[in-house]
Amino acid sequence: MSRYTSMELNKFLLQEVHAVNELFVLPKFAHLNWEEAWMMIESAKLLADRDMAPYFKEMDAKPAEYDGNGGVKTHPQLKTIIKHAAENGWIGGGAKFEHGGMQLPMMIYNTAHHIFMSANNSCQGYFSLSAGAAALITSFGTEEQIKTFVPNIFAGKWQGTMALTEPQAGSSLTDITTSAKLATDGLYRVKGQKIFISGGQHEACDNFVHLTLARIEGAPAGVKGISLFIIPKFWPEQDGTLTPNDVFCAGDFQKMGQRGYCTTHLVFGDKDSCRAWLVGEPHKGLSYMFQMMNEARISVGLDAASVAMAAYQASLQYASERPQGRLASEKDPLKAPTLIINHADVQRMLLTQKAIAEGSLSLAMECNRLSDLVHGTEGEEKQKNLLLLELLTPIVKTYSSEQGSRSAALAIQTLGGYGFTMDFPVQQHYRDVKIMSLYEGTTGIQSIDLLGRKVVMEEGRALIILAEAIQETSKKASAHEALKKYGNDLSQELTRIKQVLQHLSGFAQQGNVDRYLADATVFMEQVSYVVIGWQWLKQAVAALSALQLGNTDQTPDFYEGKIHTMKFFFRYELPHAAACAKTLMDAEHLTNIKKKEIFG
Amino acid sequence: MSRYTSMELNKFLLQEVHAVNELFVLPKFAHLNWEEAWMMIESAKLLADRDMAPYFKEMDAKPAEYDGNGGVKTHPQLKTIIKHAAENGWIGGGAKFEHGGMQLPMMIYNTAHHIFMSANNSCQGYFSLSAGAAALITSFGTEEQIKTFVPNIFAGKWQGTMALTEPQAGSSLTDITTSAKLATDGLYRVKGQKIFISGGQHEACDNFVHLTLARIEGAPAGVKGISLFIIPKFWPEQDGTLTPNDVFCAGDFQKMGQRGYCTTHLVFGDKDSCRAWLVGEPHKGLSYMFQMMNEARISVGLDAASVAMAAYQASLQYASERPQGRLASEKDPLKAPTLIINHADVQRMLLTQKAIAEGSLSLAMECNRLSDLVHGTEGEEKQKNLLLLELLTPIVKTYSSEQGSRSAALAIQTLGGYGFTMDFPVQQHYRDVKIMSLYEGTTGIQSIDLLGRKVVMEEGRALIILAEAIQETSKKASAHEALKKYGNDLSQELTRIKQVLQHLSGFAQQGNVDRYLADATVFMEQVSYVVIGWQWLKQAVAALSALQLGNTDQTPDFYEGKIHTMKFFFRYELPHAAACAKTLMDAEHLTNIKKKEIFG
Repeated sequence: MSRYTSMELNKFLLQEVHAVNELFVLPKFAHLNWEEAWMMIESAKLLADRDMAPYFKEMDAKPAEYDGNGGVKTHPQLKTIIKHAAENGWIGGGAKFEHGGMQLPMMIYNTAHHIFMSANNSCQGYFSLSAGAAALITSFGTEEQIKTFVPNIFAGKWQGTMALTEPQAGSSLTDITTSAKLATDGLYRVKGQKIFISGGQHEACDNFVHLTLARIEGAPAGVKGISLFIIPKFWPEQDGTLTPNDVFCAGDFQKMGQRGYCTTHLVFGDKDSCRAWLVGEPHKGLSYMFQMMNEARISVGLDAASVAMAAYQASLQYASERPQGRLASEKDPLKAPTLIINHADVQRMLLTQKAIAEGSLSLAMECNRLSDLVHGTEGEEKQKNLLLLELLTPIVKTYSSEQGSRSAALAIQTLGGYGFTMDFPVQQHYRDVKIMSLYEGTTGIQSIDLLGRKVVMEEGRALIILAEAIQETSKKASAHEALKKYGNDLSQELTRIKQVLQHLSGFAQQGNVDRYLADATVFMEQVSYVVIGWQWLKQAVAALSALQLGNTDQTPDFYEGKIHTMKFFFRYELPHAAACAKTLMDAEHLTNIKKKEIFG
Repeated sequence: MSRYTSMELNKFLLQEVHAVNELFVLPKFAHLNWEEAWMMIESAKLLADRDMAPYFKEMDAKPAEYDGNGGVKTHPQLKTIIKHAAENGWIGGGAKFEHGGMQLPMMIYNTAHHIFMSANNSCQGYFSLSAGAAALITSFGTEEQIKTFVPNIFAGKWQGTMALTEPQAGSSLTDITTSAKLATDGLYRVKGQKIFISGGQHEACDNFVHLTLARIEGAPAGVKGISLFIIPKFWPEQDGTLTPNDVFCAGDFQKMGQRGYCTTHLVFGDKDSCRAWLVGEPHKGLSYMFQMMNEARISVGLDAASVAMAAYQASLQYASERPQGRLASEKDPLKAPTLIINHADVQRMLLTQKAIAEGSLSLAMECNRLSDLVHGTEGEEKQKNLLLLELLTPIVKTYSSEQGSRSAALAIQTLGGYGFTMDFPVQQHYRDVKIMSLYEGTTGIQSIDLLGRKVVMEEGRALIILAEAIQETSKKASAHEALKKYGNDLSQELTRIKQVLQHLSGFAQQGNVDRYLADATVFMEQVSYVVIGWQWLKQAVAALSALQLGNTDQTPDFYEGKIHTMKFFFRYELPHAAACAKTLMDAEHLTNIKKKEIFG
């Protein structure tokens, strides 16, 4: 089995870059200390080694498949995986003690999540969805709802899902039409279809708890008329028995990647008897769902970073073992070939992957830390952390997934022709990671969220908080002569972002919101380079400090590698932020074509 | 069946951008005129519609597979495809009359090639390899060799292949070890293994003619000791019978994409009786092979452009038919959803694809034209065209394949979640096109060819010729007030390339060839943006001239679309050339890491 994550990196990010120890003094997490937390992570690694990684290829080769009659055949190992993950607390671990959880910081829980995901990315989704569904119920549901569903979900017996997308509406939740009607039993009857429902039906769980968006009859149009329902496949009656509910799985989408993770088509109320339990108040479903959605977006960012990491590790191993060719300066054909890791272009491909995978992972850890602080602190500090988290959420989701695909392409390229064959895992990583730019809101939607909502909320305060955080890192960097330059680079990029926003806000002030948002994806790209540059500078500051202090947590080479990769990112990646700015500063609007013949 | 190419574009590129008519006055092509040539292309389209496109998905779903005993099971349709293609002249069409060909210009032959490739990219490779193998034999073989092999290859009965790569050597041809020993019959006996041999064994042909590189016993080490051999699977005896030769197919690589196109593992001389026929002189095999290789590299560029084109057309069709969401300025949720083609971000994704696919295709046509001029003219003009062709060959191969992958990713993204499912073709295009950055020399190898060989040959004369060609286009553009700016942009980029080369040549002058070549791939990226910008400006000049002259070959919308896409390319893509230059101008060398622990 090949290496798929770096435990050294995981420890470094937690301890030295993102100061996980500061969490253990907060009341919510005071039950835990570093040694215990790390032991849990190491046990997660053993679980991934044993239960997940060995089935990575097989779950792709024998994908989840519809059985033609409501069932989805999944890999037999999935049952073991879910069972063991549940037993070890990796489904409910993040929940509060009172709900049967382990009250783990997201930094810890999601380090395990990263390990699982990089070992075999067809597994973790099942746990994440269950955890998210349970979190929705504990946050907004009644005591009875919690009691009925959450323990079974945390035990891995019942699978939680989120059911939003409908065939005709796609990403546009405004247009969902699944309907709900209050019945005399106090429950609702729901009717409608949902597609792309991950984990919606499979062989490893006994019941499925679909957290579903629907419109109550007479509700206002648009997103303000959407309510949230719990719709189990089997209804848990008062006496503890389970009655089949009117929920039918009508198919499983066959996908290019992540083929072990089922993606179902669900039909609710085909016989007009689909019982549904309202969560919270009517018409507030979308805002509830967004709690789950925001966490899911950070998860997807983490997932993409994890797949990119696995591809990087596989290509690094190959490059370290495969002799081929000679340096250009070596003219003697009788000299033995060199390992390909010694070729400059291979080093460029490896460093690019490292910069992307580890940079993304660091940003995901930053988000996890902010999430822990939001849930563990109060007042002004909480609010600041929340704003920064909200700003970074679409960024981690988008950068990791878009650049994760590019990173996995470089993994293939590092292996050459072999990388394209099914004999090596990197082609699977490449296929798998592509879904990440689509899950939980496409890149276009994330970018509009960033520019249209996150940048402008509270008069731009989130961006100011981000700029302060970056300046703080730059300041720390400037204490080291070797890093000063890079802090200055980031300051310059912040100025550039400000200039772009000034330019764009002109359109918004004229009321031309379509033009303001037209290049949101390019703006996302620009900001992402700067944010990942920040994460790399953070890592470099931590590494250089460790070297200077003679810290022996990691080897000197490990720390040198961080500083080196930071330099690489600033030199090979960051310059593209200025290119994005150039595109954005152009006044002409080229993406408001009215006649589709122009595309012909 | 969905649209996969644009016949309007094909005509526009041939006639209005690349002046195909100028070829018909050359003696070599005087037998042809435009009407006949276009009729052939239209018949190729019918062939692709009927024989190829309908099997695109099926040839992926039921890939070529090894039968366990020397055979490779291919799709039953392949036999029909090869038969009809041969009958219509699409295998031997480019060859001279005297060799049984139709003496077609590459511009015409390769427009058909593009159509086949975009219809179903698992087909064309079989014809291209046969054509390339035959061209090698006609160029360097004896009359007897030509007579023995070429007619059968052109008839589609025998499959030609190129057998270079060996398991232990990969891209490093210096290290091939397949050996050849002269026997008493005047033939050689060859022994060795070759991998990644496309079309090396399948059910659609009766015999396989492997153009194989091997070392004659006692040959010099390195590439100067490599000879070229014809090794048929069945030996054609003097009396016309076929005797099995000692050639065994030991496997078929299963690949992520292009699964209908077999990729075999061949074993020569396992029983020490593999007869091989030397082509040309001993030890000159690599230079012979490079004739085929150079054509193959242009082909791969064309292939990548074609797959990107098919993905673009599929996503354009989807965007034109799928209603979803509303513009940001439309707040009323009761208004009907708009077609997604009306969203700015979808237009951005479509225009990016159009810029890449059509820009690449235009560059491939430029190369085809140069190739035709090289073969149809003499003297100084021929030499100039040859130099420019040699310079552009690695560029068309690399830009089209690298950016073609990005383009196909945007096709998926345009479809959203559906794009990732097997129900739509774009995910297959995405998987298929990835191989193009590996075939016939990886991106890294192409880039070293560009910077290490093509840029420096004849004291940089090729680059001067390119700059002159670009300046000529800029001059034509400056005759139009609307296009002037873009010509200036290109001039500025040419200056930037010069600065980068000045900077890099410092390293070469110090004798540090490794450092000089270290960032060759970044240099390739920089130059590619400029070259594709040039192709777009050419298209825009042609389109604007057509509009001004009231030319009705195409609709005004078509011409407007060209000018619009040119502007888009200059605004959204070209700025990244400056970012590449910034990377290249940095003096520090970050890709000469000596300790692999730095990557850990």
